[in-house]
Amino acid sequence: MTLIFREAVRGDLERIVELIADDAVAATRTGTYGAPHLAGFEAVAASPDNELVVAESDGEVVGVMQLTFIPGISRNGAARLLVEAVRVDKAQRGQGIGRLMMEHAHERGRARGCVLAQLTSDKQRPEAHRFYRNLGYEQSHEGFKLPL
Amino acid sequence: MTLIFREAVRGDLERIVELIADDAVAATRTGTYGAPHLAGFEAVAASPDNELVVAESDGEVVGVMQLTFIPGISRNGAARLLVEAVRVDKAQRGQGIGRLMMEHAHERGRARGCVLAQLTSDKQRPEAHRFYRNLGYEQSHEGFKLPL
Repeated sequence: MTLIFREAVRGDLERIVELIADDAVAATRTGTYGAPHLAGFEAVAASPDNELVVAESDGEVVGVMQLTFIPGISRNGAARLLVEAVRVDKAQRGQGIGRLMMEHAHERGRARGCVLAQLTSDKQRPEAHRFYRNLGYEQSHEGFKLPL
Repeated sequence: MTLIFREAVRGDLERIVELIADDAVAATRTGTYGAPHLAGFEAVAASPDNELVVAESDGEVVGVMQLTFIPGISRNGAARLLVEAVRVDKAQRGQGIGRLMMEHAHERGRARGCVLAQLTSDKQRPEAHRFYRNLGYEQSHEGFKLPL
């Protein structure tokens, strides 16, 4: 299988929402594809610090992730890469697509001067935690969320 | 005590680095104030999605935090607020400065259209975890980091 990584275009958005929603934890909170997702997409596209990346195989979008490049003062002025909304098509799992996506994310981070990658994963996702640990991630932090 | 919240200026930077470094977990990785911090500060100042905020009391900087406003597709196209590098002067703790800072962070997030605040805290910081839970945060995620 050959994977192509590219920035998402508007025509990918319905498929992206489908991938993000096809998940026990995220299904209810993702919503049905519509105007709020399009507004979110436009905001991501307009931000110089964000990239929405899709993985394409044989012309089909099989994975998605959002990358955010964050400048900072701590850690000796280091920029960091935040990875969010990582999804691989359920029908395509077990072929290493997720690992290749994360390697691409890290390459993009390095290209943007980031010296650290970070992400959070819901405590209900033990398989995802194993996946990230296998990639070398240290499970060093607690993650907190608050509706505003 | 009256707190003033404002965006940091370059003249605050040495004090900010001092606050960030004055911490058992972060001391070694923050580094000594110098050119990398200045470069990080300039990058934060240049980013439309980031704000470095200081809390000032009687003309003295007593707290710092970095806010990042992140657009997105998941959670029905919601933008989220990421809070990083939260520090209160050790000599000024116990007066509620941290809580007021976080309330200011949430106000800034809402003003930027964010419907969710998120942050991570090192597993070595149980007091910080209690602080965030007391603010209403749900400790729902595992946090992962990887050097790039």
